[in-house]
Amino acid sequence: MNEFLALALEEARAGIENDDGGPFGAVIVQEGVVISKAHNEVLRRNDPTAHAEILAIREASAILGSFDLSTCEIYSTSEPCPMCFAAIFWARIKRLVYGTTREDVAEIGFDDSLIYDVIRGEAELEQMELVKLDREGCRAVLEEWRRKPGRRMY
Amino acid sequence: MNEFLALALEEARAGIENDDGGPFGAVIVQEGVVISKAHNEVLRRNDPTAHAEILAIREASAILGSFDLSTCEIYSTSEPCPMCFAAIFWARIKRLVYGTTREDVAEIGFDDSLIYDVIRGEAELEQMELVKLDREGCRAVLEEWRRKPGRRMY
Repeated sequence: MNEFLALALEEARAGIENDDGGPFGAVIVQEGVVISKAHNEVLRRNDPTAHAEILAIREASAILGSFDLSTCEIYSTSEPCPMCFAAIFWARIKRLVYGTTREDVAEIGFDDSLIYDVIRGEAELEQMELVKLDREGCRAVLEEWRRKPGRRMY
Repeated sequence: MNEFLALALEEARAGIENDDGGPFGAVIVQEGVVISKAHNEVLRRNDPTAHAEILAIREASAILGSFDLSTCEIYSTSEPCPMCFAAIFWARIKRLVYGTTREDVAEIGFDDSLIYDVIRGEAELEQMELVKLDREGCRAVLEEWRRKPGRRMY
């Protein structure tokens, strides 16, 4: 087995033992060196965003002092959910390696297929009501930002 | 304008003034009471996950002591990106109210349309290489979790 996936699995196992959250681990690597390791801690932290990949990204960014992780790879025990996938994208990580698929994850009860289906426009949300409101008023702040001298695009 | 969107706009403006990140704000409300407010702080925190919605969710979960925010609504100045949308889903927030659309946001340079397209299967990633590896080895940890007595499903 790939050595970094094996480390990510160790993380996932630690999470199971400690009842920290779901059985998922992630490792971020830069030029062959491990920068950060994390496992799902949604239950321990009472934080729905505390997925393994999010925690690993936040730690790697803190260690490297940059939101840009384009010199890094991420190893995840399972296919990242849409939240984590988009976070990996925003972090500009250049390579994502994962073990089990979204179907494997759904089999044990972590079913994020609804999110994919909604993003694809193939399902409606029952859990969440979506309301669009005050678009013009909110556009003003986008315009303010566009006109700001020296703004940092990222 | 809706009072909570107005508060979220104040947050977005504070972020612009402080050069904290993109011009986005979010507010979480429970039964008419503001629980948390946040704006994008990707630049200030050097954290690519520090979008307004993620920060507001993390703070609300810490304040309420729960990863389950199903008694809450979120007000966002702009349509949440896929990362934030999925985070709102995982937090079980019951109502999402937003101002500007993903197209408005793309106009000022924050273009998350590629993430939507990839999730829809309509685009390939150039930025990120995807590798599936060691699926069977990684399934073992999912099985371990499934067999664990007293595991908390969430």
